Amino acid sequence: MPASSPQAPALQVSRWFNTDKDLDLAALLGKVVVIEAFQMLCPGCVSHGLPLAQAIHDTFPKDKVSVIGLHSVFEHHAAMTPVSLEAFLYEYRLTFPVGVDQAGEAGMPKTMQSYQMRGTPSLLLIDPAGSLRAHYFGQVSELRIGAEIATLMAETQRDFVPSSSKDSHDALCDDDGCQVSKG
Amino acid sequence: MPASSPQAPALQVSRWFNTDKDLDLAALLGKVVVIEAFQMLCPGCVSHGLPLAQAIHDTFPKDKVSVIGLHSVFEHHAAMTPVSLEAFLYEYRLTFPVGVDQAGEAGMPKTMQSYQMRGTPSLLLIDPAGSLRAHYFGQVSELRIGAEIATLMAETQRDFVPSSSKDSHDALCDDDGCQVSKG
Amino acid sequence: MPASSPQAPALQVSRWFNTDKDLDLAALLGKVVVIEAFQMLCPGCVSHGLPLAQAIHDTFPKDKVSVIGLHSVFEHHAAMTPVSLEAFLYEYRLTFPVGVDQAGEAGMPKTMQSYQMRGTPSLLLIDPAGSLRAHYFGQVSELRIGAEIATLMAETQRDFVPSSSKDSHDALCDDDGCQVSKG
Amino acid sequence: MPASSPQAPALQVSRWFNTDKDLDLAALLGKVVVIEAFQMLCPGCVSHGLPLAQAIHDTFPKDKVSVIGLHSVFEHHAAMTPVSLEAFLYEYRLTFPVGVDQAGEAGMPKTMQSYQMRGTPSLLLIDPAGSLRAHYFGQVSELRIGAEIATLMAETQRDFVPSSSKDSHDALCDDDGCQVSKG
Repeated sequence: MPASSPQAPALQVSRWFNTDKDLDLAALLGKVVVIEAFQMLCPGCVSHGLPLAQAIHDTFPKDKVSVIGLHSVFEHHAAMTPVSLEAFLYEYRLTFPVGVDQAGEAGMPKTMQSYQMRGTPSLLLIDPAGSLRAHYFGQVSELRIGAEIATLMAETQRDFVPSSSKDSHDALCDDDGCQVSKG
Repeated sequence: MPASSPQAPALQVSRWFNTDKDLDLAALLGKVVVIEAFQMLCPGCVSHGLPLAQAIHDTFPKDKVSVIGLHSVFEHHAAMTPVSLEAFLYEYRLTFPVGVDQAGEAGMPKTMQSYQMRGTPSLLLIDPAGSLRAHYFGQVSELRIGAEIATLMAETQRDFVPSSSKDSHDALCDDDGCQVSKG
Repeated sequence: MPASSPQAPALQVSRWFNTDKDLDLAALLGKVVVIEAFQMLCPGCVSHGLPLAQAIHDTFPKDKVSVIGLHSVFEHHAAMTPVSLEAFLYEYRLTFPVGVDQAGEAGMPKTMQSYQMRGTPSLLLIDPAGSLRAHYFGQVSELRIGAEIATLMAETQRDFVPSSSKDSHDALCDDDGCQVSKG
Repeated sequence: MPASSPQAPALQVSRWFNTDKDLDLAALLGKVVVIEAFQMLCPGCVSHGLPLAQAIHDTFPKDKVSVIGLHSVFEHHAAMTPVSLEAFLYEYRLTFPVGVDQAGEAGMPKTMQSYQMRGTPSLLLIDPAGSLRAHYFGQVSELRIGAEIATLMAETQRDFVPSSSKDSHDALCDDDGCQVSKG
């Protein structure tokens, strides 16, 4: 792994759904990892973030690309408990593994903090060497995400020259997602 | 009110949101009442039932048409409690009054039972004389609902000849809504 | 017909499609008439104006409501000839009667001029007494149009008090339609 | 170029739009070429095929990926002449180069025949070595197309091992596109 490209921070998860065993970024080295951070009551997550994550899970070979949902609740905590999340995943037919982001300080979940996410939905792309390569907030283009995943997949079999981590896609909260704070 | 057209059953509600005072069909005589029965984790309710109810609330004069949401939970009860519903209404910017349908036998809420609803979303139209005039399950045409509401509104100022209550619109659960039972 | 509500101007049509006989507003007295003025190469007409007109045609009883398409070409005249229109109606499965608005001065078709339309799509509602009652330009709400058609239908059987003709719905050209001129 | 992967047939075009000079696959070697074959009166082309082609043109770097529209008219020839096409491209704001597929035998255009297309919309992917690598008919996933274009782009800078040409994506005509024949 090149020195200039930092390892993606570890996932801090209190409970997993849709998987028999806990997931761990270290164990996923060699694969592209797509993390979809969401809240079950975030309209933009329901209308585009989660359908995109499910489409990635359905489209790419599972031995090359791993899709992980991360339930990063930073507001209305009592409304989005694991029992509600479980029914939500069932009713919306979401089948990829989903972890509950561990509660942290000031209501901000720990993984969300360590990735400095701006809100939900956030989409993270991690390359086969374990480095964070893209970080989006809000609605993203399927065409572009498909291209970026394929580009990272192609790095598996060759020498690897990292690009620097992309800046977050600029987005407002309204229709697209829920920001942590507008300040 | 004509003998042939039965009064709509009373709402049995354990708690109200988005209103200062409890609502009561008897107090709404003289207005068209639109009831949208839903569950907050029913995908068809989120994608079309509730946006339609909000559009009706925003489009028609409030002194002529009253829109009421009814949270009729018949599955995943622990996942859809009032505290979750409150956050849901806030995040989805639903501003019409919403009542929680009272828990009944075998997990079926009481108002849902008295109207013999097939599932969620269900849309009910009650005329100014208090009679149930239409009852839909699943996705409905905005054009048709707009026409039916206007037709009932026109009955306010003239002699009133009821039609018989319509049969439920036939619908499958999948994309459109959640049926109580397929048996 | 009340003096205050002007009769809708006659249609000036050079050729009809989807009908055996020419249509004439005078012969349609007693019915609500919905006129959808469009151009076959106007994106807003294709994406929402014409689907709405077809839905009205499919939803309302044909002995009460008559839907008429009006091909009002005010730009790219050589590109939208009757032979192109005929293929367009076939490929888009539009089944209501469509008239070609007669060529007029300065490239503006005659009916479009007599109704002072701002562009395409424009939707006109004419009541059973033959008066123009609503005139929209651009995208319109299906809920509202459904209500307005039903309100006009209800006037057939009772004394008739006209409202003044509505102002055009304000709309910009971009996604919604094509304006005659922005000046 | 590997023997197993045939060169993509030359484009046979009678007229170009949106470009100063004629295009030629031979001159595009080294780039990924995306060909969108369409008819201006094909509803599936208008609703998804052409917006996808425009999005590819807008998303990928133009020195790496070349998008070409091909107006392959196999029905209603008199309705879709170049003068109509020119207005269509203007009104729909399509900015990538578009060639008119040369008229051939039995109403089938020549390029469409040489690629054995099933109808419109058809999307073809040609790799930097000039070989046809994918051929779709009907609606395609943006996620998948984005990934396939990026995979072909990555072949530019390394040794090139062709895959065999993909089978056509199976699709029915109805909403997705227009088939040449169902026989």
